Amino acid sequence: MSEPVRIGFPVFADLTLQDLVGPFEVFCRLPGASLHLVAGARDALATRGGFAVTPTATYADCPPLDILCLPGGPGHLGAMENAELLDFLRRQAAGCRYVTSVCTGAMVLAAAGLLEGRRATTHWMSLGRLARFGATPVAERIVVDGNRVTGGGVTAGIDFGLALAAEIAGERHAKAIQLQIEYAPAPPFASGDPRAAEPGLVAAVREGAKGYAALMDEVDARAAARLR
Amino acid sequence: MSEPVRIGFPVFADLTLQDLVGPFEVFCRLPGASLHLVAGARDALATRGGFAVTPTATYADCPPLDILCLPGGPGHLGAMENAELLDFLRRQAAGCRYVTSVCTGAMVLAAAGLLEGRRATTHWMSLGRLARFGATPVAERIVVDGNRVTGGGVTAGIDFGLALAAEIAGERHAKAIQLQIEYAPAPPFASGDPRAAEPGLVAAVREGAKGYAALMDEVDARAAARLR
Repeated sequence: MSEPVRIGFPVFADLTLQDLVGPFEVFCRLPGASLHLVAGARDALATRGGFAVTPTATYADCPPLDILCLPGGPGHLGAMENAELLDFLRRQAAGCRYVTSVCTGAMVLAAAGLLEGRRATTHWMSLGRLARFGATPVAERIVVDGNRVTGGGVTAGIDFGLALAAEIAGERHAKAIQLQIEYAPAPPFASGDPRAAEPGLVAAVREGAKGYAALMDEVDARAAARLR
Repeated sequence: MSEPVRIGFPVFADLTLQDLVGPFEVFCRLPGASLHLVAGARDALATRGGFAVTPTATYADCPPLDILCLPGGPGHLGAMENAELLDFLRRQAAGCRYVTSVCTGAMVLAAAGLLEGRRATTHWMSLGRLARFGATPVAERIVVDGNRVTGGGVTAGIDFGLALAAEIAGERHAKAIQLQIEYAPAPPFASGDPRAAEPGLVAAVREGAKGYAALMDEVDARAAARLR
């Protein structure tokens, strides 16, 4: 139960903080867990709103990991074209017990070739993109395919984290963590996914992200070409 | 709608990261919002699991805030006895549109005398402590009393953040943010509060925190005495 578990979160500029912190908050409560925020260097990385994320390890000095967990966010596009990061992911993934992601972190795993032939999920606005990398998109909050475990957008990282905590340390530990973090969610609105939200609002959010969607298409095309 | 909103999160060593990041992730998506992480100095502060939180402002140079939002976590005990922080809170609260907290951040507001005569909530394990500071404990996920808005433990900060976002920018904006952060929670277990969790597990979690509970009693007694 308490054997050491090394968990690495690759971090990059403009990641979505909640993608990272949902599973971080769960995993840091696991007995024997050590958590690493890994980047090319130890310089602080800025996220939306001016929050600085400071890496605790580099690709070069990070220990062998038991679990890789990729957060997403706008910066996932840069991450998908960061050869040093993709090399690190492929190298570590070979020895990992679980290779995982939250939100568009799945696109970074995909760009590293690590989701080929796998069922996977990601942020609802990016779901269709997974097919460009040989993965099968699944519109679920958590998708498990072998040792690949992917979570949906942003806050799905909490559900994902608890589900993985149960795999690692047993259901009782996971339930104790859920109680500690008082995870009895009560959203004030029912607008958390495109099936629940008002169609006009879904359209408006898509429209607001149109320029970003075009950029995603370009990055995907380049990243998929590199994999061939 | 897009008038500037200055939101300050006092930060301290050993805060619970999710307490801070839940509302941060929501508020950073509000039009016109500027977010400040405020401490006595700009040195990085360590949280559980080795995550460094870097303040972006100090008590001395923080601009006048529209919203104060106190995170909690084990470090709230130190914060309750930090005279410089308590002075900052009282000074800023006088001009704030909303004075708010997540989790045991409420105890820091209480220690500053800012919850006297108010209904409030906090982490379920600390709920009864609020009465020591003249507040009325309410076992709800979000409690609004005038301009005091308090959220329950840890993950309640997301629900709290969305509810406050609706107050500030309107329900449509809050719903758009909920969709962006895909907040359609699906906890893998029903163990998120002491009413839902197995009684044996609740007892075990309480037992594991017994030493901490004794420390809380001591700090509360000193902090309440200082208010008299």
